[in-house]
Amino acid sequence: MEYVVPVNVHNDLVEAAYRKRGFTEDEAKQGARFCELAAWHGIKTHNAIKALHLDELFGSLNKTNPGCVPGATIIKKPSKYEACQKWNANKKLGQAVAFEAMDTAMALADKYGVGIVSVDQAFHYLWGGGYVMDAAKKGYIAYTNCTAALAEVVPFGGKFPTLGTNPHSWGFPTTEAIGYPIVIDWATSVVAMGRVQQFKREGKELPPGAAVDQNGNPTTDPSEAHALTTFGAHKGYGLALINELVGALIGGSLPTIRSRPDQAGAGEKTTPNFFFQVIHPDAMNCGHFAAGRDQATNLKAVVDDILGHGNAVEHGGGCILPGRIEHDAAMRSESAGGLIFTEAELGELEHIAQECGATFDRNALKRVD
Amino acid sequence: MEYVVPVNVHNDLVEAAYRKRGFTEDEAKQGARFCELAAWHGIKTHNAIKALHLDELFGSLNKTNPGCVPGATIIKKPSKYEACQKWNANKKLGQAVAFEAMDTAMALADKYGVGIVSVDQAFHYLWGGGYVMDAAKKGYIAYTNCTAALAEVVPFGGKFPTLGTNPHSWGFPTTEAIGYPIVIDWATSVVAMGRVQQFKREGKELPPGAAVDQNGNPTTDPSEAHALTTFGAHKGYGLALINELVGALIGGSLPTIRSRPDQAGAGEKTTPNFFFQVIHPDAMNCGHFAAGRDQATNLKAVVDDILGHGNAVEHGGGCILPGRIEHDAAMRSESAGGLIFTEAELGELEHIAQECGATFDRNALKRVD
Repeated sequence: MEYVVPVNVHNDLVEAAYRKRGFTEDEAKQGARFCELAAWHGIKTHNAIKALHLDELFGSLNKTNPGCVPGATIIKKPSKYEACQKWNANKKLGQAVAFEAMDTAMALADKYGVGIVSVDQAFHYLWGGGYVMDAAKKGYIAYTNCTAALAEVVPFGGKFPTLGTNPHSWGFPTTEAIGYPIVIDWATSVVAMGRVQQFKREGKELPPGAAVDQNGNPTTDPSEAHALTTFGAHKGYGLALINELVGALIGGSLPTIRSRPDQAGAGEKTTPNFFFQVIHPDAMNCGHFAAGRDQATNLKAVVDDILGHGNAVEHGGGCILPGRIEHDAAMRSESAGGLIFTEAELGELEHIAQECGATFDRNALKRVD
Repeated sequence: MEYVVPVNVHNDLVEAAYRKRGFTEDEAKQGARFCELAAWHGIKTHNAIKALHLDELFGSLNKTNPGCVPGATIIKKPSKYEACQKWNANKKLGQAVAFEAMDTAMALADKYGVGIVSVDQAFHYLWGGGYVMDAAKKGYIAYTNCTAALAEVVPFGGKFPTLGTNPHSWGFPTTEAIGYPIVIDWATSVVAMGRVQQFKREGKELPPGAAVDQNGNPTTDPSEAHALTTFGAHKGYGLALINELVGALIGGSLPTIRSRPDQAGAGEKTTPNFFFQVIHPDAMNCGHFAAGRDQATNLKAVVDDILGHGNAVEHGGGCILPGRIEHDAAMRSESAGGLIFTEAELGELEHIAQECGATFDRNALKRVD
């Protein structure tokens, strides 16, 4: 049994929660817009509950070291490089910064073919896939990476965690070709630390090669797991390293003190960084497609070839496109007429309503099986 | 026992070989420059021997379906997007196209902060890592991907190979920070098909999960291996898919007929595509580094933190930076005073000399242990 929360009811609640914490009207709207996007696409790990909880732990409600500052103003630094912008986010709400950065990168791509926004002094933007999906739906090729909050991942060959779970997210404008954007979006660790805790609660073993113990030795026991490993050995290590190097070039400091202001010396920085990039598909279109196709039909022909030959689930195989699971969840939301939450999640939403004094009536909600 | 071939002797030989096959003086020079770069950095899989052999099999010496055309002119298509260029390479020598594209992307990055060159109708550029390393040594953040010649890789969950081994290569300007550029460069398959053949020759088992048999079922027997798998399951699949989507947007056609003109219908295309991107580090520099550092010293501090805490080989760990092996090989070349080749490779170089009527005297070469 799950509950269907109408989008306006959900967004009003989330906005009220952000407003209660002192965020501006625009920040609250962007925060709610993001949580809607996540819930609509079935992203349970980064919905309103997680977003507000994260802000509670590390953000505006962390009174010792607030990682997020309501009403902060982004400083857009002057640059002689016209297709690239450099922003100091001043710990503004991550979702508001990310949407604005992606919008800016799209506008730059409209003019120059490609646009980049590099962001210093950021606060967690939650789900990179959401921003690239949004841009891909608007017809762009979008990419983002960020330095994840904590150094929890051991570099390949090492023993001590010095890398974040450092995600990469790519979105492609395939809606015309296949009905939804292809979104490639994952962390560079084999599993997330949240998954380790889940396995521990459920008394399950971790997959081999996903975690190491206090001494840096491999373990499949979630209660022994002290740090994570990169997926694909040295290849995932290289991908995790990219976020750290990009972050370091932008202005980020040592990964092992990131989000740990209590461990940082004077003059140090503990904020993560964001990198956004958008390419206009026309800027790559060499105009010579086979068999009389145009760019969109060529994209479809290539995707059909990849999933053809019996590979696709529709044809007896087991292969789906990245972004398909999120698309299916969106279809389910569409059909239910709102955002679908579990019983446990509904309790959390009621808790959020209590915190900010909003009304939220579970009896008014439709239910789905 | 290995032989040291002076750079000028090597380059004269390679240039003569390309000239003999009808390539222009500039193409021959770029071809030799690339082979020097590969051999200098210990890249055995993409040195002069491989480059000329590839041209023999699929390139200018393949008289049925020449994938490479000596003296071809790149058509640079008009574009309203100033930071991006779109080229039809007309099957010009891949190395010459790639060097010119990377030079162009660097010039665009000097002006716009970022520059992109998309290439249609390409011929194999051999080792993407070489081009990004070259740009990184010049101070840029460089990236390239291409659609690999043959569809040899099964998409995650599928059974039939419809993806290339599709490499990605990133280079970072870390020379000032650590003495050499970090170069992250690998194929998206667990192993290359060449490795499968090597294991077969040596009677060794493949690592688990690296290959599938004729029916798409996993095998570790190299003689049963019919197709490859992506590294990191769905994550490597996503990365392999990126090259196909980028290729499709540029102008590439179905992966399963790529480099297989005998299987392509009328009006089809079988050429691979290249994508090059360069970012100027100043265009990302938000100007606010911790503890009074500048961009280069910040990069060094971050890298030192990642390899610190006992992780680095220098400190008892097993962790090295991507690009370190190539840097060590370059140091060895430097110290030997030339390019180091094995006995077997020297025989191949003599064979190349015979083909083009050049003199190549093994007795004049220094030897190293």
